[in-house]
Amino acid sequence: MNDLQTRMNAALEEYNLDAVVAISLENVYYLSGAWIMTQKDIPDRLAIVVWPRQGEPQLILCANEESLAQRDSRISAIHNYVEFKTSPIARLADVLRAQGLDGARIGFERKYLVAEYYDELLRSMPNATWSGADRLFDEVRMIKSEEEIALLARAALITDGVIWDAFQMARAGRTEQEIGSFMQMQMFARGAYGGIFLVLGAGDAAGITHPSPRPRPLENGDVLRVDFGGIFDGYLADLARTMVVGHASQAQRDTYARLWQVQQETIAAVLPGVRASDVYRLCERRAAETGLDFSMAHIGHGLGIGLHEHPMLSPRTDTLLEESMAIAIEPTCRNSDGSRFHIEDLVIVRAKGPEIVSRAGQWEKLHEAI
Amino acid sequence: MNDLQTRMNAALEEYNLDAVVAISLENVYYLSGAWIMTQKDIPDRLAIVVWPRQGEPQLILCANEESLAQRDSRISAIHNYVEFKTSPIARLADVLRAQGLDGARIGFERKYLVAEYYDELLRSMPNATWSGADRLFDEVRMIKSEEEIALLARAALITDGVIWDAFQMARAGRTEQEIGSFMQMQMFARGAYGGIFLVLGAGDAAGITHPSPRPRPLENGDVLRVDFGGIFDGYLADLARTMVVGHASQAQRDTYARLWQVQQETIAAVLPGVRASDVYRLCERRAAETGLDFSMAHIGHGLGIGLHEHPMLSPRTDTLLEESMAIAIEPTCRNSDGSRFHIEDLVIVRAKGPEIVSRAGQWEKLHEAI
Repeated sequence: MNDLQTRMNAALEEYNLDAVVAISLENVYYLSGAWIMTQKDIPDRLAIVVWPRQGEPQLILCANEESLAQRDSRISAIHNYVEFKTSPIARLADVLRAQGLDGARIGFERKYLVAEYYDELLRSMPNATWSGADRLFDEVRMIKSEEEIALLARAALITDGVIWDAFQMARAGRTEQEIGSFMQMQMFARGAYGGIFLVLGAGDAAGITHPSPRPRPLENGDVLRVDFGGIFDGYLADLARTMVVGHASQAQRDTYARLWQVQQETIAAVLPGVRASDVYRLCERRAAETGLDFSMAHIGHGLGIGLHEHPMLSPRTDTLLEESMAIAIEPTCRNSDGSRFHIEDLVIVRAKGPEIVSRAGQWEKLHEAI
Repeated sequence: MNDLQTRMNAALEEYNLDAVVAISLENVYYLSGAWIMTQKDIPDRLAIVVWPRQGEPQLILCANEESLAQRDSRISAIHNYVEFKTSPIARLADVLRAQGLDGARIGFERKYLVAEYYDELLRSMPNATWSGADRLFDEVRMIKSEEEIALLARAALITDGVIWDAFQMARAGRTEQEIGSFMQMQMFARGAYGGIFLVLGAGDAAGITHPSPRPRPLENGDVLRVDFGGIFDGYLADLARTMVVGHASQAQRDTYARLWQVQQETIAAVLPGVRASDVYRLCERRAAETGLDFSMAHIGHGLGIGLHEHPMLSPRTDTLLEESMAIAIEPTCRNSDGSRFHIEDLVIVRAKGPEIVSRAGQWEKLHEAI
């Protein structure tokens, strides 16, 4: 909590803000330690953290979430509102005024607060100066503590083990749904908290970016691609793997070997001080030189409580990499048969060189279900 | 599709709008048939349906979702944008202008569009008149087709069966997490698509509204409460059940019997033409008369693609119930030991009387793990 206070205070100083207001599940969890699951399922029901430059942080939530917050929150100043009776924004305005922030400079999550609440906020606090603080939160969260890195590495290794085991059973005749159900069930059996996402496509669906498993049986020669993850103790796994059902063709092996090589070279460039866009450019250039059919808007992203955290490895991200960032590196390419190959690993930025924390299985060579 | 067109056209007429713009996963799926999973996981990456009063609906999405939409979408006019290069709002404005809607009256989802995109939208289309269309979508979606009802009933029965089976194994010594993992795994084994949410608390956590399973072993006398669901073919299940580990006390049996009675009487009032707030009031009054410790902001809600759909059964909802609504009825009360009892079922509003579609298990009496 002390480290968090230091980081938040420095960020508030840098952005010249008197306070920030967090409303996303990710930032509320990061700041309070309380995981309010309904923030995603029931978006109307806001949970809010006010983090002032001076004074104590404040937590505002729906009355029926208060018992959970009292148990789990590190923030002890808790305020509630009764749903359908008092608007969460009206309650927020009360709390801000009580903190002497009526005419203050306040940052909020422009990328999360919805138009209805945004208009109400501007009306309720006309003397405050509001500005987007999404970037402030991105920058605070993009540097992980060793505790966060340990949680991310654990989530990644478990998830990779599940994929590895699923690929052992992905033989002709089994359906995509059988493989997918096994994967999802294994995540819970091995400790996932929830938030499972599963992209799984084989054969004619292996060229679609985000397909869901179908009842279709696998056939020999199918490319099978998964992009898979879930939440363990509040932190996400996100990994992609590609295999061939039965014996792979020489062309398939060759595409995989080249993509693996490009991913390895891209990972090697993940060093403190390197610009995120330069990692993208390197990957793009090497993919072209290697003859891969490459076309991606980004080739990686920060990972943490959120799925696409800062920095995105896109051609437009100026951010310099720093120690203790956790970055998913995920080049994909299209094979001549129309399928998509995809390899995604989690890399920690270290002074001594990139640390890959996501390989429980043997992925150097294209996996074949022989 | 024809039925949907009729309903949407009538709604646009009623609200005097030239077009509506949908951006939530729920409404984009409802209107297009394409399930874009990243709409929740990667909220920046908008998928958008433009539904004009005249002309064809248009679908706008990130380039890497286009292959999925081409396969699954009923809307054939598909436009894409490249992430981090073109803003989805800029693309939306192009499409609206191409449809001749530059100066039109356009409804949008005020409860979903975030402030950043909202400001950009107002700047990009200064001649349009924008208004919230959340209510329009609520009203169109709150009446279910028989096909939707069949999907909801199937999801409810499967989910109830999972809870029933889990309660058979909820004996002293097993942990909350064992029970919870079993439930989540069984949902996938029985065909859930994703979106599993699990509230599970026993003993001292049975009084918390939204607890997650802990490593703690169950003890004889514990109240165990679950509120549980997931997505099957795009439609949600949402059910709550309460049991006692070992033999229940007379007080526990008594509380359950009274809550069951109140729920039955509340369900009996779910008839076409009845005001949603009156169902709430009836439940509240009967709970008080029965001596239950009752305090709820709502006692039920519509269910469909979304978890809390219209109408909410709250004291402030004027909506009249109509045939073919699907409504979760979920009174809860606090027992003298501090635990919370909760019974939630799914009810279809029918002219001939309420149809309960969610009871695979035997719930008339408090379940005891003897």
